Amino acid sequence: MTAPGAGASGEDSLIARYFKPLATDPGAFNLGDDAAILKAQGEDIVVTTDAIVEGVHFLPDDPPDTVARKALRVNLSDLAAKGATPAGFVLALALRAADDAWLTPFARGLGSDAGLFGCPLLGGDTVSTPGPLMISITAFGRVPPGKMVHRSGAKPGDRLVVTGTIGDAALGLDILKGGPAAAALADAAAKAMLVGRYRVPQPRNAIADAVRDHAHAAMDVSDGLAGDLAKLCAASGVSAVIDAPSISLSAAAATLLACGTVGIEAIVSGGDDYEILCAIPENRLEAFERAAELAGVAVTSIGIIIAGSSAPKFLDAQGREIPLPRISYSHF
Amino acid sequence: MTAPGAGASGEDSLIARYFKPLATDPGAFNLGDDAAILKAQGEDIVVTTDAIVEGVHFLPDDPPDTVARKALRVNLSDLAAKGATPAGFVLALALRAADDAWLTPFARGLGSDAGLFGCPLLGGDTVSTPGPLMISITAFGRVPPGKMVHRSGAKPGDRLVVTGTIGDAALGLDILKGGPAAAALADAAAKAMLVGRYRVPQPRNAIADAVRDHAHAAMDVSDGLAGDLAKLCAASGVSAVIDAPSISLSAAAATLLACGTVGIEAIVSGGDDYEILCAIPENRLEAFERAAELAGVAVTSIGIIIAGSSAPKFLDAQGREIPLPRISYSHF
Repeated sequence: MTAPGAGASGEDSLIARYFKPLATDPGAFNLGDDAAILKAQGEDIVVTTDAIVEGVHFLPDDPPDTVARKALRVNLSDLAAKGATPAGFVLALALRAADDAWLTPFARGLGSDAGLFGCPLLGGDTVSTPGPLMISITAFGRVPPGKMVHRSGAKPGDRLVVTGTIGDAALGLDILKGGPAAAALADAAAKAMLVGRYRVPQPRNAIADAVRDHAHAAMDVSDGLAGDLAKLCAASGVSAVIDAPSISLSAAAATLLACGTVGIEAIVSGGDDYEILCAIPENRLEAFERAAELAGVAVTSIGIIIAGSSAPKFLDAQGREIPLPRISYSHF
Repeated sequence: MTAPGAGASGEDSLIARYFKPLATDPGAFNLGDDAAILKAQGEDIVVTTDAIVEGVHFLPDDPPDTVARKALRVNLSDLAAKGATPAGFVLALALRAADDAWLTPFARGLGSDAGLFGCPLLGGDTVSTPGPLMISITAFGRVPPGKMVHRSGAKPGDRLVVTGTIGDAALGLDILKGGPAAAALADAAAKAMLVGRYRVPQPRNAIADAVRDHAHAAMDVSDGLAGDLAKLCAASGVSAVIDAPSISLSAAAATLLACGTVGIEAIVSGGDDYEILCAIPENRLEAFERAAELAGVAVTSIGIIIAGSSAPKFLDAQGREIPLPRISYSHF
């Protein structure tokens, strides 16, 4: 990204107008160079990258500020799950046209979240595309050397803890698409809450330190709780048993479950939750819960890590295994 | 990116099959986690990001291995111009389908270049898109603290030096599109050379150390020499005079210029050169040229930095200013 000078092009003007105000970090050089500098004073730099595509990860008529927030927050969620403190991000933006009515709220949302999460824009690239909009963000965090929290590391006996509530975002998408949840839910505020959860995830960066201090393993739940748990277990060489009724649901999701609009298998395999799933050793659970409470993040213990290599089991209130025909979202 | 385990999806299998073999750096964790680690022992981390879009930066029928190489090399070129040593990269890949016939050579080309330039794959994201393919790469380099070479810093009296030859890639694109260069150039080998320069840039990482040791300012020439020089001058608060006949051209480009198929103004405003433009103080020029020769990179002195804020001037053999109606490529 480059701000304009004597050789200013339309692309340079676009960057200067919309994105230069966001480049508050000295390492961004006001977007006036070909690269940014990320300073590291002995910490490890945690790097994560997530792209979102119009029509796949967001809808064409989603408000531009929510698209920007989602693009950044899905990356912030990874940093949180790895126990990292946000350090900044770079943005690759593919646009069909330089449309002020879209770019102004997009940049405003992006800048607002960059400030809120202490994660400044460091640089990027703006390109034209004849196809769907795509926003690719690479975000950086810092952890003390060797302290990144991995997917691997969960041990038999660890408690499985999840932040927030599960399933809301997938139900929000269902509402936006006019699916069964849209018809079944009368309450407009409940609908708006679910849609909001789809459009603007709530990354749990407030408990990144607690995850780093206490978790044996962690990841963010982005492709469905069941599938992501299976990945964590596979990486750790363990299995798990989940008490499905323990999974924390919003009132709206609980209503839709109670009236049969949606089954628990859909809730645990829906994507876009952006909550943290972590394996906490029994003797650290109380300290973790206390730290989460201080940070204002709800956490729920939903199961336990067991030895073995079988797929994690989700049990119902009667202790019967819940069949899960499709455990996660996959692009291919 | 995540390699598959018990919860393997199509996406995970794709990543494991094609990209895990490229993730040779210990910080990539075999693509088995949600994030990578970039170690920094006191150096500054240089971060650059460049995206390429099918139909915009590469053609739908370009060989997949060249598409991969171009995606990485346009980023390596930025690192070289900033005086940085490659440290690794992350990849966001938007695909319409998991097509083995495309992915196999794509991954092979990417892995080959990652090895060649010492820039390992650290992580990434693979998403589906209904639109054109898009490859967004964020690359990392290391420089001693405070030693990144900036666009700003050029001083009156500095010599302007360019690596390699200018204009070949734009002529190669013209040939691929069946433009005037295709008809005018009879020699198949010359055509193939120009097309190769469009498809596979030659980033000048071999002289990154020399740039860092000697240049007051540098940038890579990606949007046209004239426009990029104007950006360097604007960032430095200076102007420049270029002796256009000094600009190094390939034999093929020189032929097309001599027979009037293309004008010098098109050559200096065509994009995709991925050469380094740098401002070298007079008393360092010899040392820089010697270092470049040792590294096997041709460099040519094409002009001089002067005081002032007017647009850089390109002069012909008679010392007359060459009119440049359009100095660079812009996406918007």
